Amino acid sequence: MVIMSHHKKHLLMTPGPTPVPEKALLAQARGMIHHRGPEYGEIITRVVENLKYVFQTSRDVFIFTSSGTGAMESAVVNLFSPNDKVIVASTGNFGDRWANISSAYGLNVVKLEFEWGTKADIDVIKKAIDENPDAKGVLCTHSETSTGVVNDVKAIAELTKDKDMVVVVDAVSGLGACELKTDEWGLDVVVSGSQKALMAPPGLAFATVSEKAWKFVEESKLPKFYFDYKKYQASIRKDPPQSPFTPAISTMLALGESLQMIREEGLENIWKRHIVFGRAVREAIKSIGLNLFSPDDDSSSAVTAVWSPEGIDPKKITTMMRVEYGITIAGGQGKVKGKIFRIGHCGYFQRSDIISTIDALESVLWRLGFKFEKGIGVLAAQKVFDEAGIY
Amino acid sequence: MVIMSHHKKHLLMTPGPTPVPEKALLAQARGMIHHRGPEYGEIITRVVENLKYVFQTSRDVFIFTSSGTGAMESAVVNLFSPNDKVIVASTGNFGDRWANISSAYGLNVVKLEFEWGTKADIDVIKKAIDENPDAKGVLCTHSETSTGVVNDVKAIAELTKDKDMVVVVDAVSGLGACELKTDEWGLDVVVSGSQKALMAPPGLAFATVSEKAWKFVEESKLPKFYFDYKKYQASIRKDPPQSPFTPAISTMLALGESLQMIREEGLENIWKRHIVFGRAVREAIKSIGLNLFSPDDDSSSAVTAVWSPEGIDPKKITTMMRVEYGITIAGGQGKVKGKIFRIGHCGYFQRSDIISTIDALESVLWRLGFKFEKGIGVLAAQKVFDEAGIY
Repeated sequence: MVIMSHHKKHLLMTPGPTPVPEKALLAQARGMIHHRGPEYGEIITRVVENLKYVFQTSRDVFIFTSSGTGAMESAVVNLFSPNDKVIVASTGNFGDRWANISSAYGLNVVKLEFEWGTKADIDVIKKAIDENPDAKGVLCTHSETSTGVVNDVKAIAELTKDKDMVVVVDAVSGLGACELKTDEWGLDVVVSGSQKALMAPPGLAFATVSEKAWKFVEESKLPKFYFDYKKYQASIRKDPPQSPFTPAISTMLALGESLQMIREEGLENIWKRHIVFGRAVREAIKSIGLNLFSPDDDSSSAVTAVWSPEGIDPKKITTMMRVEYGITIAGGQGKVKGKIFRIGHCGYFQRSDIISTIDALESVLWRLGFKFEKGIGVLAAQKVFDEAGIY
Repeated sequence: MVIMSHHKKHLLMTPGPTPVPEKALLAQARGMIHHRGPEYGEIITRVVENLKYVFQTSRDVFIFTSSGTGAMESAVVNLFSPNDKVIVASTGNFGDRWANISSAYGLNVVKLEFEWGTKADIDVIKKAIDENPDAKGVLCTHSETSTGVVNDVKAIAELTKDKDMVVVVDAVSGLGACELKTDEWGLDVVVSGSQKALMAPPGLAFATVSEKAWKFVEESKLPKFYFDYKKYQASIRKDPPQSPFTPAISTMLALGESLQMIREEGLENIWKRHIVFGRAVREAIKSIGLNLFSPDDDSSSAVTAVWSPEGIDPKKITTMMRVEYGITIAGGQGKVKGKIFRIGHCGYFQRSDIISTIDALESVLWRLGFKFEKGIGVLAAQKVFDEAGIY
């Protein structure tokens, strides 16, 4: 006999969009304001100030009304010219997206494909840079949402440092979850979005541009208008500061609240919290007897990807968890669709969310015929949390 | 002596963003949901269905997370190829934007500039089409937000009907306020945004594409990725229907509510209501003794633009109205900045909003030394409303 709760609470454990704090959700209920007045000027000023903190940069952060992909496109169209050579270090679906955007804009793409579920090999990238001294940039991924891998973008930046090339980082799901220091690491362009670890609804995306990268912007000949960095720079320096085009105002209000929460918790604490989330999920997964698809190390702190047990379609697991337990996790993307499932834990999460997810996963797996010692996953997660002092 | 209300209620009378109904604002406070699941599939399906009604089209309506300018750019990059010739019929700032986007993408722009505050002359456009048989499209503006002009896009479409060219319409501030019938009038691509007459927060933009226009899409060689129509068409036809990239989910929830309200009121009623708003504002303005910048006819029903009285900086009027009366109207844009002010009345407005705005305007003008018979503007508006039976 199955008795389901009639009134199901929902828990969103996907790697984006992620749960939005009540305070941020409610901020959107505020009556509409105009985007060229002093009131909005104060809001955007505070948001940019807090984004600089999150990006760990002293430079402007541009805010686009778009998804994270829009911000990725902005980097390509503002930095390069037709036929420019770029090296793409792809470790998954979003690394492939760098290659697809670059190809769509007529760039000459040197694509390095690393096995999904593993990190980009720094030596391979170094070799590609040596073999392609005419390359204008290396496009890479911080947290690869499709596999749970977090790449060593600091080491990648080192390789381009003294060369006439820029390093461009997709930090959509990693920013605000895993360590990233734009200025200190010498990252030239970093792009991100509002809907992952920044705990706001989707709809806004961001980009920072180093001084070195600005030289590329000056020389870029690819066509652009909506994502033109110069327009955003000019607008943010107006009095009052503003966006060149009407921004997603309600989403900005939400983002203002969530960034304030990030500021209060502190980035170092947030990075540590995410490391513990990743560790708790991995220990639970291994205890249950499942195999990790994402790396079994503390770098993997935004998303955990897991091989579905042989003979069990991950779609069955994700559907049962969503419909019967009210917990939404994600399936695989691209070439691992139908093979893995992913638990997102970047953003507004706490111990109880992880425990509930592992409990539901245990229950679903058991019902699907995959047997193990019941409770062993939850116990493993408990131990990680207790050892780390996260309650 | 000046006694201001300490707790100021705010009234947004700008031509975008516009006031958002409470129901739509509050819809955004709902907990985040995933955008690739069946629940979001139902939401986007209903929104597209209602957008088709508002656009008066039987075709797909694509939804972008961007401002209206993003949707304008989408039309240019999806329809044309480098060096293609296009005719731009500009009657103001947003007509100029068509020319600027087209130039940014390397099109050969034949720009027809009509005096600001007047409508595009159909004969002039006809002549330009005759003289440029190789032109691939006519880009025009339905409601020109910067001047209050609403162009006869139906007549423009007639000119291109039997030719190998498309008519592309910016209906950002006009759609849902002034009559527009995409299919019946033969408009090939119509773009719009969420934040004007559709009564939702900014952040979403739309495009419809006729069968004729799809042939242009197939042949287009301009680079594109984020705004690629083919990606949006493929995604909306998936099961469940979705967006290719993470959409502005909270804004979609708000739009769902506001479109439902539009559906309940009915487009014909909405168009009539806006005609009366325009008429009431114009009669008030003329009674006060000010000169209209926008045309003095019923087509001008989304925005009313007014010459500031000689010697009075419109910035003074807009600032006093905002700070002291809590009513935000807009100044001029582009070449009429510092010369006109604009009262927006497309969207979620009613009689009391117009009356309050005219009252504040009268009071401000009088205090700035522009004299007239006090109350005469309000009286004129009252008469229009009473005659039309709008209470």
